[in-house]
Amino acid sequence: MKSQISKVLKKFLCVLTLSGITILSLHGQPASNRVKSPELMEDGSVIFRLYAPEIDSVTVRGTFGPGETTIAAEKMIKNDTGLFELKYGPLPSDMYVYTYIADGVSMLDPNNNMVIRDGSYIESRLVVPGKTFDLYDVKDVPHGRLHTLWYPSPTIGTDRRLIVYTPPGYESSGKSYPVLYLLHGGGGDEEAWVSRGRANYILDNLIASGKAKAMIIVMTNGVPSNEAAPGERPLASVMGQSGRAGISAMTTGKFEESLVKDVIPFIEKNFRAIPDPDHRGISGLSMGGYHTLQTTFKYPDKFEYIGVMSMGLFRNVNKEELAEQIQALKESDPKLYYIACGKYDFLYPGLLELLALYDEQGFKYMYHESGGGHSWNNWRLYLSEVATLFFK
Amino acid sequence: MKSQISKVLKKFLCVLTLSGITILSLHGQPASNRVKSPELMEDGSVIFRLYAPEIDSVTVRGTFGPGETTIAAEKMIKNDTGLFELKYGPLPSDMYVYTYIADGVSMLDPNNNMVIRDGSYIESRLVVPGKTFDLYDVKDVPHGRLHTLWYPSPTIGTDRRLIVYTPPGYESSGKSYPVLYLLHGGGGDEEAWVSRGRANYILDNLIASGKAKAMIIVMTNGVPSNEAAPGERPLASVMGQSGRAGISAMTTGKFEESLVKDVIPFIEKNFRAIPDPDHRGISGLSMGGYHTLQTTFKYPDKFEYIGVMSMGLFRNVNKEELAEQIQALKESDPKLYYIACGKYDFLYPGLLELLALYDEQGFKYMYHESGGGHSWNNWRLYLSEVATLFFK
Repeated sequence: MKSQISKVLKKFLCVLTLSGITILSLHGQPASNRVKSPELMEDGSVIFRLYAPEIDSVTVRGTFGPGETTIAAEKMIKNDTGLFELKYGPLPSDMYVYTYIADGVSMLDPNNNMVIRDGSYIESRLVVPGKTFDLYDVKDVPHGRLHTLWYPSPTIGTDRRLIVYTPPGYESSGKSYPVLYLLHGGGGDEEAWVSRGRANYILDNLIASGKAKAMIIVMTNGVPSNEAAPGERPLASVMGQSGRAGISAMTTGKFEESLVKDVIPFIEKNFRAIPDPDHRGISGLSMGGYHTLQTTFKYPDKFEYIGVMSMGLFRNVNKEELAEQIQALKESDPKLYYIACGKYDFLYPGLLELLALYDEQGFKYMYHESGGGHSWNNWRLYLSEVATLFFK
Repeated sequence: MKSQISKVLKKFLCVLTLSGITILSLHGQPASNRVKSPELMEDGSVIFRLYAPEIDSVTVRGTFGPGETTIAAEKMIKNDTGLFELKYGPLPSDMYVYTYIADGVSMLDPNNNMVIRDGSYIESRLVVPGKTFDLYDVKDVPHGRLHTLWYPSPTIGTDRRLIVYTPPGYESSGKSYPVLYLLHGGGGDEEAWVSRGRANYILDNLIASGKAKAMIIVMTNGVPSNEAAPGERPLASVMGQSGRAGISAMTTGKFEESLVKDVIPFIEKNFRAIPDPDHRGISGLSMGGYHTLQTTFKYPDKFEYIGVMSMGLFRNVNKEELAEQIQALKESDPKLYYIACGKYDFLYPGLLELLALYDEQGFKYMYHESGGGHSWNNWRLYLSEVATLFFK
């Protein structure tokens, strides 16, 4: 019977293919157009390919560029069969994203089924294995659980979606845990720290090696005019794509208020969170770094662990008022105030000003200046540090 | 201070844009290439657009075709500014997916940030609001929770990933619930019933209206050679893209065995599931329908509620052996055996044979023959029925 069924199913797969359903096709492209792309070489070089005889020009645009911009844009070379190729690198171990620009139109690599969405960016993924990717690869260690749920936000006036990571063993331990509120950047949403940040796997690995304490991580949507990531939101906002216009809502102060008044009580009621400032951390990148600054200025007693990633001060801010807020934060004396920024980040000058102001006010912080710029390659590394430093 | 900060942030957004980070860009394409697409008209027609002066020919390929194939492929018309347009429809309310074929290369609609991945298919999403989409839109009703976690599978020899839906109120009710094991089709994975099937919102809405009982839904990965959806798997299988080759593993019987021996005990230990056949259902589409058939033939006493979607019998199966299995199933007398198939499904002839065999054996079932073919538009409707019929 088993071999019969197996024969039958082979026929079934064949029928599927013949009938044009082509269940194995990538992105619905015809099999005849398939090529291996990206192909990773042993030295960390990568070959990008696209079979496109009718296209004149293709550029690879990816986050693997050097130095300041971190964006590389390189023309591929077309051979006389219509195959475009580009060899790039060798690249250091990391997770990168890229798209093709084919005759002026941006597209995914149709031969790569690894795709990452980060807000409105939908890009193909490239992984170079090794030391850095090991930080957030799926390893043979106990895994935590991701909970995707909706919570009421009276401050914003609607239900909103969030993602919660609970550490391995949470379900059976009966114990309570510290909580890290982890905030995304401008243009992102509650899925960013999972899809592109791989926060869950970073924590799985750090907890397994004993480098991080077991903790809960809460990932919210920092755009108060949005209820959730695109595609989840109720139809009205989805069809209007109002989410993109809504980014200016990130600076209204509503998110910070909702985080403290709505999210924290919800989490501490619905998860086994230790409900005191000693066991509450907050960290965010870019716009989420701004939210971290604003939340802790406004509510200086709420969090004992604070991490600001890739965000600084702006020139025309009222420094006197800010000095008062810094003094209030100084009096609350957080256990750790971590700041990290890339040397080539376009916000680096503002970051130096923020540090100068903290120094002037005698406010203590831990500062990590990395290479690179305003990029996820940095933010994943910063989270790897934050996770080992918080709650200790 | 607030208006100061607001001014500062406007500057920040401006700096981001000027610095080339363009956080609001869609898929990284230049703002100058942006057009509204898809645009939904009041009568349910839709206008697809692509600005691509250097491209000669663009076709829209989508799941909104009529009758047999459900796939439509229509050429867009290019005007003299380089803008391609196509008006299509009016379309009935539903959720569709589509891609563009631009000079022979398939790509997402770069102006649409709604993207759905189903296995190796990564496609742009089109929603036509109305009665059908209402079944699985995010409504103002209590929402269940999605749990994404890893479980040990001794049968397959590795940890594997699954997604569990718990109904609204699960966390606080203290009650136990029936469980529906919901299986995806060939080429899919554990995310398919959420991303393209919207199973969680279908259940939220049916539970809120009192049409379905509150239940747990378990969504597994039916390809035993894969540990998880692409991008989650450990690097070895990701880089080799072995997941696609692994589809033949779906017919080895290993998945069915692991479902009964590994998944069910894990769920009944880790969730408040009512652990008896009266409160256990199984349903799947296409290859998942095959898995449903095989699991219930092999373990006829495990499930009292069975739903086979878009899957029939194959000509060279051993009908005598099958007749014995049907008799065993008949003796176990399941409370409901539901079968559904589209009239234009390419598996429809095999379905008729299956029904004939069941009739011959005197095995009772409920049969729903719908319009349409082998498509998610049907499977979402079938789940809407299964959810209202099971556990009653």
